[in-house]
Amino acid sequence: MHENVLLSHIFARTRSLVETFPQVLLGPGDDCAVVDANDGAPMLLKVDQVIEHRHFTSQTPFELIARKALARPLSDIAAMAGSPVAALAACVLPRRFSQDKATELFDTLHNAAVALNLPIVGGDLATTGHPDAPIALSISLIGKVHPRRGPVRRDSAAAGDFVYVTGTIGDTYHADPTEQHPFPGGGHHLTFTPRLREAAWLAEGLDNDLHAMMDISDGLGLDAARLARASGVRIEIDADSIPLRTPSRGPRQSLADGEDYELLFTAASGATVPRTIASLGTSITRIGVVTQGSGCVLRHEGNLIDIADAGWEHA
Amino acid sequence: MHENVLLSHIFARTRSLVETFPQVLLGPGDDCAVVDANDGAPMLLKVDQVIEHRHFTSQTPFELIARKALARPLSDIAAMAGSPVAALAACVLPRRFSQDKATELFDTLHNAAVALNLPIVGGDLATTGHPDAPIALSISLIGKVHPRRGPVRRDSAAAGDFVYVTGTIGDTYHADPTEQHPFPGGGHHLTFTPRLREAAWLAEGLDNDLHAMMDISDGLGLDAARLARASGVRIEIDADSIPLRTPSRGPRQSLADGEDYELLFTAASGATVPRTIASLGTSITRIGVVTQGSGCVLRHEGNLIDIADAGWEHA
Repeated sequence: MHENVLLSHIFARTRSLVETFPQVLLGPGDDCAVVDANDGAPMLLKVDQVIEHRHFTSQTPFELIARKALARPLSDIAAMAGSPVAALAACVLPRRFSQDKATELFDTLHNAAVALNLPIVGGDLATTGHPDAPIALSISLIGKVHPRRGPVRRDSAAAGDFVYVTGTIGDTYHADPTEQHPFPGGGHHLTFTPRLREAAWLAEGLDNDLHAMMDISDGLGLDAARLARASGVRIEIDADSIPLRTPSRGPRQSLADGEDYELLFTAASGATVPRTIASLGTSITRIGVVTQGSGCVLRHEGNLIDIADAGWEHA
Repeated sequence: MHENVLLSHIFARTRSLVETFPQVLLGPGDDCAVVDANDGAPMLLKVDQVIEHRHFTSQTPFELIARKALARPLSDIAAMAGSPVAALAACVLPRRFSQDKATELFDTLHNAAVALNLPIVGGDLATTGHPDAPIALSISLIGKVHPRRGPVRRDSAAAGDFVYVTGTIGDTYHADPTEQHPFPGGGHHLTFTPRLREAAWLAEGLDNDLHAMMDISDGLGLDAARLARASGVRIEIDADSIPLRTPSRGPRQSLADGEDYELLFTAASGATVPRTIASLGTSITRIGVVTQGSGCVLRHEGNLIDIADAGWEHA
């Protein structure tokens, strides 16, 4: 079962129905939903979950599990240029978990949230009868939209835009000894920092020249294709321009790796986009263009390669 | 592991810390958290989950699983006298689930939500490697507070108040052939209607005479004791006055049954509380009084019985 494809189908079918509710400003299918929570207060909503043996192993320390569980939906808030307000946590534990271990997991989660400047305001935990059922941890987030720019959607790229990414792409599962983070050796997919400040900077600086944005979770190829499809445009990416985390891995493997949690965005061709956000030390790289048409292709060694199917599907 | 006790301990420890965040108006520990989502828009937040073999069986139809998963947190929104705005759904499925079955479960969930006038604006699903891991379904809700009364908390009962419940208490696991609902024979715990309209009616009609409120999920005894503890008062309940669903079951068993999902509230002694909300056909019964002191006791056949420990702990 390809879960993301399945979810996309389900949400595509239900989206128009959900959007008949007057409070729903943007239904499922983007990085977050947008809801008019209180007569003129548009809010971002997102749920995501991490599962043992899927998103982390039985050896992963609680600190990294908690961090990843929180950082993944935070990356979706960033993708809309929003800022997080509060979180809810729900946890399913196997029977082998003692009360002490459950308390430790919740404490760790709470501390990780505070470190990310996020209050966990409610939660639930349930044990299963199964001695070895996997740990499952779901985090729901509520966030504010950017006060001036509003939510930045993935369906508003326009032909003529340039395409950009923050940071570096690919090879997210291996530990990078040069990375500066509190858990050296954990690998980018466990230790990334959600691009909340970068997204706010872009919304502030580019304003309405910032057209479409999403985060890269399933691979640059697959996610750029989603952005193109949602916007009804074509995206062409220049392989040589992709900022690779590990150059020896090459562009085609790197754009299929996934779990980059970088921002992928398009901006009007006339916009001034710096190569580095100086105040944050984060690089921005122009990797391609938006044209009329459909699909997503990579220009690599003189060939045009369809990359809409490249990427990491949660199989 | 007594999960609710464990969660209470965790939340009691973290609540004051969480409430140092300026956007958190009420941290974990009540039926919902209250968050100032957007500079003056107080919102209710709640997450709850249902797990196979715990909250439903492998024979329970998808319609009833979906309904219960949504109705439980909706009952918490009701308990604050709020109204729901939108839901997020996260689902963990065993490997035995086919794509068709997963789609069917999400469709059923979506339809159940629409029937409850609630849009599901986002979701996630993940399969485990386990062929027979239990199905786990978590629902997060965002809701509005009552526009005039605001959120009705459980910590604001006052000595001198009367104590009331809506509907009937106990025997929630057996099918009641006389009940009018779309799933005859399902048992109240699967088929109850969250008391959203009753709660709104009480907030509207009683206004500031409506002092404290919560929903009864773990048994009237245990939950009344929680309300007493949160408010720093004592509650005395008259056994003969409890409206029993099944009178032959008796008050002591009935108040320990749990999963009533009725409203338990206190109101100023001078307030006019009708015996029935005529427009809704829902009964209201005065079952006791709030006094100074602490604890929760049942006056039964001339004896005072401590009922703070009676009730259904999720063991």
